[in-house]
Amino acid sequence: MTGTVHLVGAGPGAPDLLTLRAARLLGEADIIFHDALVHPDTLALATRAEKIAVGKRCGRHSTAQRFINKRLIDAARSHRVVVRLKGGDPMLFGRAQEEIDALVAAGIPVSVVPGVTSALAASADLRQSLTQRGVSRSVAFVTPRVSADTPDSAWADAAVAADTAVIYMGAKEAAAVSAALIARGKPPGLPVAIVENVSLPEQRILPTTLAALPQAVAALGDGPALLLIGEVYADIAVVRRVQQRRVA
Amino acid sequence: MTGTVHLVGAGPGAPDLLTLRAARLLGEADIIFHDALVHPDTLALATRAEKIAVGKRCGRHSTAQRFINKRLIDAARSHRVVVRLKGGDPMLFGRAQEEIDALVAAGIPVSVVPGVTSALAASADLRQSLTQRGVSRSVAFVTPRVSADTPDSAWADAAVAADTAVIYMGAKEAAAVSAALIARGKPPGLPVAIVENVSLPEQRILPTTLAALPQAVAALGDGPALLLIGEVYADIAVVRRVQQRRVA
Repeated sequence: MTGTVHLVGAGPGAPDLLTLRAARLLGEADIIFHDALVHPDTLALATRAEKIAVGKRCGRHSTAQRFINKRLIDAARSHRVVVRLKGGDPMLFGRAQEEIDALVAAGIPVSVVPGVTSALAASADLRQSLTQRGVSRSVAFVTPRVSADTPDSAWADAAVAADTAVIYMGAKEAAAVSAALIARGKPPGLPVAIVENVSLPEQRILPTTLAALPQAVAALGDGPALLLIGEVYADIAVVRRVQQRRVA
Repeated sequence: MTGTVHLVGAGPGAPDLLTLRAARLLGEADIIFHDALVHPDTLALATRAEKIAVGKRCGRHSTAQRFINKRLIDAARSHRVVVRLKGGDPMLFGRAQEEIDALVAAGIPVSVVPGVTSALAASADLRQSLTQRGVSRSVAFVTPRVSADTPDSAWADAAVAADTAVIYMGAKEAAAVSAALIARGKPPGLPVAIVENVSLPEQRILPTTLAALPQAVAALGDGPALLLIGEVYADIAVVRRVQQRRVA
């Protein structure tokens, strides 16, 4: 037999931001390989599945990618419904491609189930659109993590060219982000919203500016954090809004 | 009494790509104001609500925004749970800000429920990541629609600077998109994936190139279409993959 591997986005963190399709597949799953940061209530939807953590956090490979690929292929040869559950959306900084390509090469049927990415969940709780008539018609999602195979500055060029920029996995590089964007002409006073633990009860929102960003991140805890940068965050009401509790 | 207005993302089209939170709110809603393109099966989840279409399609204001704002405020003064249901995600080209600001100014509690945006759903069905190690570390979401209050070229600069660009509401302006990106140095042979009716049974995927884009869109029907542009679509396997039926 050959089962199907479903690469499923778990969404930004809150269990009820999972899609109906993802919830159904978790209930049908025979075996689940999940990231470290998936919420326990999400995993609890998988009532009959064997659950295996293959945690990669903040870009570190704590389980080697090639080993994960092999386990997925092996699982599909002995299970009907295999779920690979990833935080956020699989196709946006989710490193899904290596797994998809390995599965396709092995002749394993693959489906991908999209998820709510954290930039959209953070925007919802900020009650501030990423795009806005007359202020922002473009948004860039980038990661500043530097690797040997990519020019260092491409992410910064993309962030500067868009009206609104969202930096994923960038809080630890806040000083480099701030310096690179100011060096490329963004104003030091450009508003920034830092959102830690997006969509979870422990979510924190810190309004700041590009120049003050390196100091502001010092107040963050250990949770993943997004940096949202642009004139759309200039509205004084943003600061008021974020101090209110979310209505939900 | 004052109710709460929930601005809810309906996702890309397929009813099961709604979030669990959105599905719950639809079930609790007393009244729903929805876009024209929301799927009937999604509306059917709202078993007890009065349903009012306030269709805006492809950026045309078929119902004036100010009138929608007023109806939402009035509804919150006579209903407990008011849902404003929008295609995709409210905060990304969803024009939610005008409604949020009007509601906040009127003292109406507002919550926003994020949704799966169509770029992520299209990427899932293409089985091609927007970002990919060694190929793409940045993605720009832009719309080329020109208005009097924004410089014409900002969207193109943002699209060119990112490794991958997704053009929302751009199929009708494919010639302008192609010309603007090539004029700014993108190669005429740069791969493009056009995805029409994202996530629906009638979804169509057309692989093309930047230079051939104006001809390629002529084959599209009336449905909304996304343009996904970048080297990540170069993999010859993309063409093979998109010709397979989705496994789901």
